[in-house]
Amino acid sequence: MGPMRATLLHSPRDIRLDDVPDAALVLDTDAVVRVVASCICGSDLWPYRGVHDVRKPQRIGHEFVGIVEQVGADVSTVQPGDFVIAPFTFSDNTCALCERGVHTSCTNGGMWGLRDKQGHDVDGGQGEFVRIPWADGTLVATPSEPSAEMIPHLLTLSDVFPTGHHAAVSAGVKAGSTVAVVGDGAVGLSAVLAAKRLGAARIVAMSRHDDRQQVARSFGADEIVAERGKEGAKTVREMLDGIGADHVLECVGTKDSMAQAIACARPGGRIGYVGVPHDVELNVPAMFGRNIGIAGGIAPVRAYLGELLPDVLDGTVAPGAVFDLTVPLDQVAEGYRAMDERTAIKTMLTI
Amino acid sequence: MGPMRATLLHSPRDIRLDDVPDAALVLDTDAVVRVVASCICGSDLWPYRGVHDVRKPQRIGHEFVGIVEQVGADVSTVQPGDFVIAPFTFSDNTCALCERGVHTSCTNGGMWGLRDKQGHDVDGGQGEFVRIPWADGTLVATPSEPSAEMIPHLLTLSDVFPTGHHAAVSAGVKAGSTVAVVGDGAVGLSAVLAAKRLGAARIVAMSRHDDRQQVARSFGADEIVAERGKEGAKTVREMLDGIGADHVLECVGTKDSMAQAIACARPGGRIGYVGVPHDVELNVPAMFGRNIGIAGGIAPVRAYLGELLPDVLDGTVAPGAVFDLTVPLDQVAEGYRAMDERTAIKTMLTI
Repeated sequence: MGPMRATLLHSPRDIRLDDVPDAALVLDTDAVVRVVASCICGSDLWPYRGVHDVRKPQRIGHEFVGIVEQVGADVSTVQPGDFVIAPFTFSDNTCALCERGVHTSCTNGGMWGLRDKQGHDVDGGQGEFVRIPWADGTLVATPSEPSAEMIPHLLTLSDVFPTGHHAAVSAGVKAGSTVAVVGDGAVGLSAVLAAKRLGAARIVAMSRHDDRQQVARSFGADEIVAERGKEGAKTVREMLDGIGADHVLECVGTKDSMAQAIACARPGGRIGYVGVPHDVELNVPAMFGRNIGIAGGIAPVRAYLGELLPDVLDGTVAPGAVFDLTVPLDQVAEGYRAMDERTAIKTMLTI
Repeated sequence: MGPMRATLLHSPRDIRLDDVPDAALVLDTDAVVRVVASCICGSDLWPYRGVHDVRKPQRIGHEFVGIVEQVGADVSTVQPGDFVIAPFTFSDNTCALCERGVHTSCTNGGMWGLRDKQGHDVDGGQGEFVRIPWADGTLVATPSEPSAEMIPHLLTLSDVFPTGHHAAVSAGVKAGSTVAVVGDGAVGLSAVLAAKRLGAARIVAMSRHDDRQQVARSFGADEIVAERGKEGAKTVREMLDGIGADHVLECVGTKDSMAQAIACARPGGRIGYVGVPHDVELNVPAMFGRNIGIAGGIAPVRAYLGELLPDVLDGTVAPGAVFDLTVPLDQVAEGYRAMDERTAIKTMLTI
């Protein structure tokens, strides 16, 4: 390996591809993966925009796929040459919480770009190589090397598609039920696709943007509602039997979007929420009177890959349509700018 | 019918059995029921204690069983002489929301002691007779007249046992799962029994009172935790695989009890809540990070009677053990005093 490059956020809106220490095996349970494609998440925009302090140049990115380069002595489920999907958190896949499908709360788990439980730095995903802690528990290999066309679809499995799926599962979407989706970002669009895949009979996507409406329709939305807030919720209720949606997928995370989601739900309905909450408040007495439930959170991607990967590989779903901009990794700054300015829904970074 | 008597709350702590207008058929969908037994709910204590204003003497009580005396021309599923259970809300059982099992949000529904949608007064349940709106949709008859010993068990089906069941169902309790119950009132105890009935493998009841602990154990609690708050939650987590309960049943409705419930849940766990919320706040970011869901609300009792009644009739469950005081209706004031002073868990009123 030559000098490795990875994305560093130096200060708000100053993001660059720089030389960094080489990714290397540290523990016997590690692997090193050569990144084939990564992407930018809506949540990456929070530090990019300076909402969180950036004290020193920090590694960033948590969605990537690639080829295994090296494995530690204790790694047995993947081997060099395997094409792998890396969920946006790493996990041992064996602890009591992983066993219950909550890999995001894994006793040994952690997040890309931070540190593992042993105190070693962990690479960010927007780079050339990544050291993978708990490679057996974290990585999922495809049966063979995928075609170039398949890469974007597989890349969505590292975060955005399973996150939409988590919203749908948390809300209890099932065959024949009605669904409203709040949020037309990549996660909201993925939630539409996930609801469709689970057999929802009627899906209403809430979106004001023509390009996103089109993706929503291609993913299975039956209706588009452009209004927001109370007006939008009223329209959704009228569309859905006059009572509202059985399941509402909240994919934004603001106070307004959550209020909109609750107003879209029928009595007895469930909200599945995956938008990282910022100042969200819940009107508990109102939810109590109407029997509105809420579930969701940070998506345990690893738990869902066994179910979702086959449907991506055989073309049942094509979630990669959320990417409407692809740039090489060394133009990562352009990728962030486009998402920040909302000229792109989601940016893929190739190497 | 002679002059009818019913309970009236005149002002805080001034509650009496008084003469009131006779219950009578008003609409063709009505029935009139002669009350055999009624009871006092924890929620009746809110107006009794003056937390809500009492502007004029008001009818009270919403849990009762009895014998059908008269039916309107449009009533077909019950007939005079039938022994019936009255859920704590009335409902038509045919609207879009009843069809979805949310009878508490019935388009034509309402609550005892208030008014129906047509504007007619509705009797309270703590009286000698009750006019029943939407008798076909509201009442559930037993196959034959029950024995005196069976009455308390059947009476719990009007509210408290299905409310505990609603907590368990909303939390997703299923065979083999672990459950913690917050609250040792009649609802909390019923939630223990409901969780046991649904096959929970391990049930922890949180209670500091010896008499309630005994009922909890008889209902299926495997462990009792007397500590409350953070300490209690820590003990519960330690007992349950070191991670907490799969399902937590919140049967109180205060800020502290909800915080305790959330702290008892494992990551990925679900709270089922049926305690009427007073100043409850939810820490949404903390719930998001741990994937804690919450569902529940006012229990749609009518939806559950088809499932629960047979198990009560055949003795599979004996939920009437929540009654530890029985007084005649004309001593209703004594019944309230005992519950207010916590010398009784729950009071049954006989006629």
